[in-house]
Amino acid sequence: MSVDIQPVRDYFFQLQTDICDRLTAIDGGAEFSIEDIHQETGAHSRPRVIDQGTHIERGAVQYSYSLGDSLPPAATARNPELSGKGFQAAAISMIMHPRNPYVPTFHANLRFFLVDQSHWYFGGGFDLTPYYPFQEDVVHWHQCAKRACDPFGADVYSTLKKQCDDYFYLAHRNEARGVGGVFFDDWIEGGFDRSFEMTKSIGDNILPAYVPILEKRKDTPFGEREEEFMLYRRGRYAEFNLAIDRGTRYGLQTGRRIESVLASMPPRAIWKYNWQPEPGSAEAKLYEDYLPARDWINLD
Amino acid sequence: MSVDIQPVRDYFFQLQTDICDRLTAIDGGAEFSIEDIHQETGAHSRPRVIDQGTHIERGAVQYSYSLGDSLPPAATARNPELSGKGFQAAAISMIMHPRNPYVPTFHANLRFFLVDQSHWYFGGGFDLTPYYPFQEDVVHWHQCAKRACDPFGADVYSTLKKQCDDYFYLAHRNEARGVGGVFFDDWIEGGFDRSFEMTKSIGDNILPAYVPILEKRKDTPFGEREEEFMLYRRGRYAEFNLAIDRGTRYGLQTGRRIESVLASMPPRAIWKYNWQPEPGSAEAKLYEDYLPARDWINLD
Repeated sequence: MSVDIQPVRDYFFQLQTDICDRLTAIDGGAEFSIEDIHQETGAHSRPRVIDQGTHIERGAVQYSYSLGDSLPPAATARNPELSGKGFQAAAISMIMHPRNPYVPTFHANLRFFLVDQSHWYFGGGFDLTPYYPFQEDVVHWHQCAKRACDPFGADVYSTLKKQCDDYFYLAHRNEARGVGGVFFDDWIEGGFDRSFEMTKSIGDNILPAYVPILEKRKDTPFGEREEEFMLYRRGRYAEFNLAIDRGTRYGLQTGRRIESVLASMPPRAIWKYNWQPEPGSAEAKLYEDYLPARDWINLD
Repeated sequence: MSVDIQPVRDYFFQLQTDICDRLTAIDGGAEFSIEDIHQETGAHSRPRVIDQGTHIERGAVQYSYSLGDSLPPAATARNPELSGKGFQAAAISMIMHPRNPYVPTFHANLRFFLVDQSHWYFGGGFDLTPYYPFQEDVVHWHQCAKRACDPFGADVYSTLKKQCDDYFYLAHRNEARGVGGVFFDDWIEGGFDRSFEMTKSIGDNILPAYVPILEKRKDTPFGEREEEFMLYRRGRYAEFNLAIDRGTRYGLQTGRRIESVLASMPPRAIWKYNWQPEPGSAEAKLYEDYLPARDWINLD
């Protein structure tokens, strides 16, 4: 089969609708906005944002199809010879900031870059950022990630899991952003059909990975202390997005629609000076038991 | 007179005390913490932070003296031949996030880099970030800036004012951070004594520029709307610090003590999706009348 962006666009577009529909139904309070932005080039983006919901404080699920005259170096770190060529790109990216500190924030994206029949690649993944984690939730998340990867090779999950741990890392804090998941880039394994199948497998596992956690934890009682810790940890999310994340920094530097680029920012965040969790506290547990990278499939 | 870092250190160290004492007296509720951090190399830093005060929600005034084996390229953009040499540096930097939205946030820093008797420079400046500005306050701020610069040349203020407007700019928003002030870098004009005098003149004008505004506005009644707008605009401050500011990015990349580097972050910030001020509102006035760069000495 020839390399064709249309079925990839169709899949990402439909996935956006499926995810928004499902999350809207669970939230029960707010709905996703829709904007359709068409450009003369044929580019099409559809940002969808849910705000101040019952369970979702802010969520963004964005679809985009774009065309460019010149592939930026940042888009193809491992294929520098493609830099400067014309390209098409399709992408879906999403982030969900919950109201309840017992529900983790989650982020996922999938993307496809197409230069020509022999130069293209997939990328993406999903990762989880809990505040007060439950071990069974993190294990479930990683089991879904593994299930998505296993049909494509015995070591795919462990490779992508490590890439995720490496990428979502705040070096300036010596601290992981969350408990990871999977992350892949410049992916061409087995050719277009097979790589697209793997990308779809990751995409199809986003809702099964997140929804059971959201549903199980969204009504957990919490107080000011838990909310404050969630807002404090969201400061880390802002640090990662603004100072580190390749996609956000690329968006800031290239004049993309800024409200779309920064729709991922937390609705509220706080910074404290020199704060440390109390030893033995639930907050310390996050730092000690969950943020350091570990094997969530074969628990010690 | 030979180029000597000791009097510069002494001046910055004393200025830190003077500024903290004055702001503590005005706040009346909280006090600045003191940490003294000495290193084997002779390096000395003294971060001071005030938190949850009556009028100051978070403020940081930091002094540091450091020694390095190898001057980083970022430290000397206009003197690339110095990159890689050993150096000493003294710096004071400060930021004040008020509680009252009618009081602007302010930021100032002064720094001195010394490589050898013929390679050294001063840098620094101060800038103001109002939420609900008063024209007389902004004029006063710039008059203080001009008064600080005028003894050192008729065009010094206008040069440094333009550099400030250029530096504190969020290109991704096409928006200034605030109403500016003065900003200088790689400063050697007239030799060491004269450059140090100018640096002191800027430093001596920090309190006279800010204190009258803080005192005049700190008890202005405000409501939820004004507070929310302040928190929203603080999101811009976070964006600037994390994504743009040279000093912060340098600190993030070089493993400096992270709580000192990020003491400048707003204590609270919010992000909204696609928010615009209502035409004709007080919030729109900030964007229309104050953020676009203009001449605050000779008003149109």
